[in-house]
Amino acid sequence: MPNKLSVGILGATGIVGQRFIQLLEHHPWFEVSWLAASDRSEGRPYAEAARWRLKTAIPERVAKMTVSPATPAGAPKIIFAALDASIAKEMEPEFAAAGCAVVSNSSALRMQSDVPLVIPEVNADHIRLIESQPWRRGKGGFAVTNPNCSAIGLVLALAPLHRRFELETVMAVTMQAVSGAGYPGVASLDILGNVIPYIAKEEEKMEEETQKLLGTLNGAVIVPAPFAMSAQCNRVAVEDGHTESVSGALRDERAMQPRSRGRRPH
Amino acid sequence: MPNKLSVGILGATGIVGQRFIQLLEHHPWFEVSWLAASDRSEGRPYAEAARWRLKTAIPERVAKMTVSPATPAGAPKIIFAALDASIAKEMEPEFAAAGCAVVSNSSALRMQSDVPLVIPEVNADHIRLIESQPWRRGKGGFAVTNPNCSAIGLVLALAPLHRRFELETVMAVTMQAVSGAGYPGVASLDILGNVIPYIAKEEEKMEEETQKLLGTLNGAVIVPAPFAMSAQCNRVAVEDGHTESVSGALRDERAMQPRSRGRRPH
Amino acid sequence: MPNKLSVGILGATGIVGQRFIQLLEHHPWFEVSWLAASDRSEGRPYAEAARWRLKTAIPERVAKMTVSPATPAGAPKIIFAALDASIAKEMEPEFAAAGCAVVSNSSALRMQSDVPLVIPEVNADHIRLIESQPWRRGKGGFAVTNPNCSAIGLVLALAPLHRRFELETVMAVTMQAVSGAGYPGVASLDILGNVIPYIAKEEEKMEEETQKLLGTLNGAVIVPAPFAMSAQCNRVAVEDGHTESVSGALRDERAMQPRSRGRRPH
Amino acid sequence: MPNKLSVGILGATGIVGQRFIQLLEHHPWFEVSWLAASDRSEGRPYAEAARWRLKTAIPERVAKMTVSPATPAGAPKIIFAALDASIAKEMEPEFAAAGCAVVSNSSALRMQSDVPLVIPEVNADHIRLIESQPWRRGKGGFAVTNPNCSAIGLVLALAPLHRRFELETVMAVTMQAVSGAGYPGVASLDILGNVIPYIAKEEEKMEEETQKLLGTLNGAVIVPAPFAMSAQCNRVAVEDGHTESVSGALRDERAMQPRSRGRRPH
Repeated sequence: MPNKLSVGILGATGIVGQRFIQLLEHHPWFEVSWLAASDRSEGRPYAEAARWRLKTAIPERVAKMTVSPATPAGAPKIIFAALDASIAKEMEPEFAAAGCAVVSNSSALRMQSDVPLVIPEVNADHIRLIESQPWRRGKGGFAVTNPNCSAIGLVLALAPLHRRFELETVMAVTMQAVSGAGYPGVASLDILGNVIPYIAKEEEKMEEETQKLLGTLNGAVIVPAPFAMSAQCNRVAVEDGHTESVSGALRDERAMQPRSRGRRPH
Repeated sequence: MPNKLSVGILGATGIVGQRFIQLLEHHPWFEVSWLAASDRSEGRPYAEAARWRLKTAIPERVAKMTVSPATPAGAPKIIFAALDASIAKEMEPEFAAAGCAVVSNSSALRMQSDVPLVIPEVNADHIRLIESQPWRRGKGGFAVTNPNCSAIGLVLALAPLHRRFELETVMAVTMQAVSGAGYPGVASLDILGNVIPYIAKEEEKMEEETQKLLGTLNGAVIVPAPFAMSAQCNRVAVEDGHTESVSGALRDERAMQPRSRGRRPH
Repeated sequence: MPNKLSVGILGATGIVGQRFIQLLEHHPWFEVSWLAASDRSEGRPYAEAARWRLKTAIPERVAKMTVSPATPAGAPKIIFAALDASIAKEMEPEFAAAGCAVVSNSSALRMQSDVPLVIPEVNADHIRLIESQPWRRGKGGFAVTNPNCSAIGLVLALAPLHRRFELETVMAVTMQAVSGAGYPGVASLDILGNVIPYIAKEEEKMEEETQKLLGTLNGAVIVPAPFAMSAQCNRVAVEDGHTESVSGALRDERAMQPRSRGRRPH
Repeated sequence: MPNKLSVGILGATGIVGQRFIQLLEHHPWFEVSWLAASDRSEGRPYAEAARWRLKTAIPERVAKMTVSPATPAGAPKIIFAALDASIAKEMEPEFAAAGCAVVSNSSALRMQSDVPLVIPEVNADHIRLIESQPWRRGKGGFAVTNPNCSAIGLVLALAPLHRRFELETVMAVTMQAVSGAGYPGVASLDILGNVIPYIAKEEEKMEEETQKLLGTLNGAVIVPAPFAMSAQCNRVAVEDGHTESVSGALRDERAMQPRSRGRRPH
């Protein structure tokens, strides 16, 4: 595979890191050549350091790789970051400053004004924001983020409506699977026979990320889409797959009415 | 118990009929003296005709009662009706016409213009609508209905907001327990590890009943509350108890903004 | 596909029939050329007659096939039968008598003395029993059955132990998925937050089938394996996949003790 | 309440400690006058130190009590201990040595030869074992334990059979609720759509405790009941309530055969 691009995974032993390894196993462009995790795992063979939780087997080649320290020295130029937000906040800028292209799955930098938050099908042009990043002007590194899992599905559905009719109000209610909370995550006593009507920080993320994703690039800034937005996030007894119920109103009155059977006053 | 009012239950062998029996067991005003069900049950002792599904025991006195035919002859003046909507449509008017006060749990007559749909804490005054009923002017019978289970919780919360600020838009999303679908109801293969994003006729009921409940009595008609209303109903893997996530906007702008973090255009 | 064997499916519209269609789609030996179901489906295109419930799509070729009447006239020589036991009892002998090789998934004929009940890895030799079947001596047809789903997993594990050490006692407890009850099958109100400690006829099937499967062919009879057997079958809130906990004792005392930490008297 | 006996709870802030508080709230004999927990809780009002998880409210009087240090100084003479086994191992003997009657819910001392393991309906006579305890001969304290939750239900059912027919073999399979694992306990990702076929140390406890409970007091020792015993413990997606499937054989052959349809050899 001499033509593949060498990539590294930060936070390789966690569930998200494992998913990166799984998805990149047969990737036509990328080859995982570097795995980093916390001090506890450093220096150990990956198969031993990680408690593998996915249903497919650990790729044999990856199983034997030694876990590297989580520092830019020796890391490849392309980094997929699967870190907790609290750690990502420090570590992702460090790798970008050292010249790496950091593609992050964490919420740490998502709302930072010069960091693109991207769904390729929706706002690929926001990627130009990386030219405003200080790291880019230094050693050439940069950071790009992907959105919250619940925002992705919502925005993919909203984008064409927004382009054609302009959204005025969006009210989204989620019923999210427990896998989104990681492992061990949600306690079974909390979810069996129950709906948990709150997911910490999730509603804020959905609201502000949706507006940034549907916003417009204006020089070195994203102007958020100016609709009113309310998100309410619930956890349900489902293993995988989020469900969302969405209502709202459009600005272009000639085009479409909000879905409503309400009788309006005259 | 010579001072208690004698009451009957129509559809006494079903789950809702059983719940009426359970709730009326120690009632200070009412005594169940008549139970009616389909032809199949008629003439049999109740304990044998009904497949009792509640966790509390069948009241001993009720267990021994004989199931009566579902006709007004011999029925007491007060009837709690627990019938399927299709049957209720024929049978409830028949009992009202024969002089009975029919208190119905079915959707059959709820939206009929001269039938009150009542939550006592919210719109007790709508009860005056019974004076417009033809049965009232004949033998004196009448019919009153209670709302859909999901509308009750919603309207109890909306009523004080509507009175003070006037609702402009209501967007309600439900996550409803499987018990609401009766027994056997929802198949376990459909709900385990899943959210069912549709409940037949439930959204229509929630929307139109909410507007009628919060409407105003104007002579012999209810003028429905004129807000825009959207309901989306989901079934979740919960045994008992519905959850609802609600958003919306109020008309009195000085008073309150909809819960939203949206940036508004200037 | 000129060299493939033409096969038919009896009960093709049910869940088991659908599974036969799914599993045979790319089979190297067999080609489904005939689908039969109840009168209600007869003459209609399969895609319209069946309410397809599997996650993979209906094979395009099968979707367009017309459902045949469930009679041997016009049926191919090899029939996979996916009928309810009550119907299978009449219909499977009818097809065998007409010269078909009937491979049945139902319990109807399993315990009939001249019908082989086979797990190929365990008792392939029992297949010789078909030579004792009257149909074989007539037009040459015969019937073979596969075991109850819970018996299969149990017997695959017991077989090598029985051969080497001879089973004396087997006590099996199952925790079975709801998919085993078909659709709609188990009501969600019965299984959410619950274990259902009884599955009609399942314990009898597991007990007698296990003894027949591990029995020995003696001329035209199977002598059931002579161990004491107890099965207790429970339904649990799992979509797919049965779990079993098994204990027991072996006859060959020199070889092995039952799994037990019991202190024995001297 | 001057005539009530003053009692203390060790480990009062955990789930089991909370359950003791709940169950003792209106107890006719006992009054909770002392609550102890770890250093972290010491000196704080109970309502603040404990994260109350039960559905009934914290008894008002208890809510205001200050959490004491977990040392015998100042503790009442009767102690209900709700500690983790690892801590109980040190702390329960310490309280017994200081003169307290320690009634323990933990597994730490259950199998100690001079500590009674008691189900009052089954083996109340085992209580005499406390006279053999060294603490009893010192300051007069002693320790008594109750069994593992799964053993209690099993032994209540086995006891009359054992007395009349003498058990020869017992094979028990449990399907246990997640509440038995405490909070947060079982991860929802592990139990949704699944059976967990292993509960650490549970099988050993069920096996040895069952034999001790049905054993006989012989001077200063319990001679365990001499039947062979196998327990297999599974966790299922149930909130509360364990289910058990049990098989076995009896020694008194004239009396009863094990439940079995096995054909026996001649």
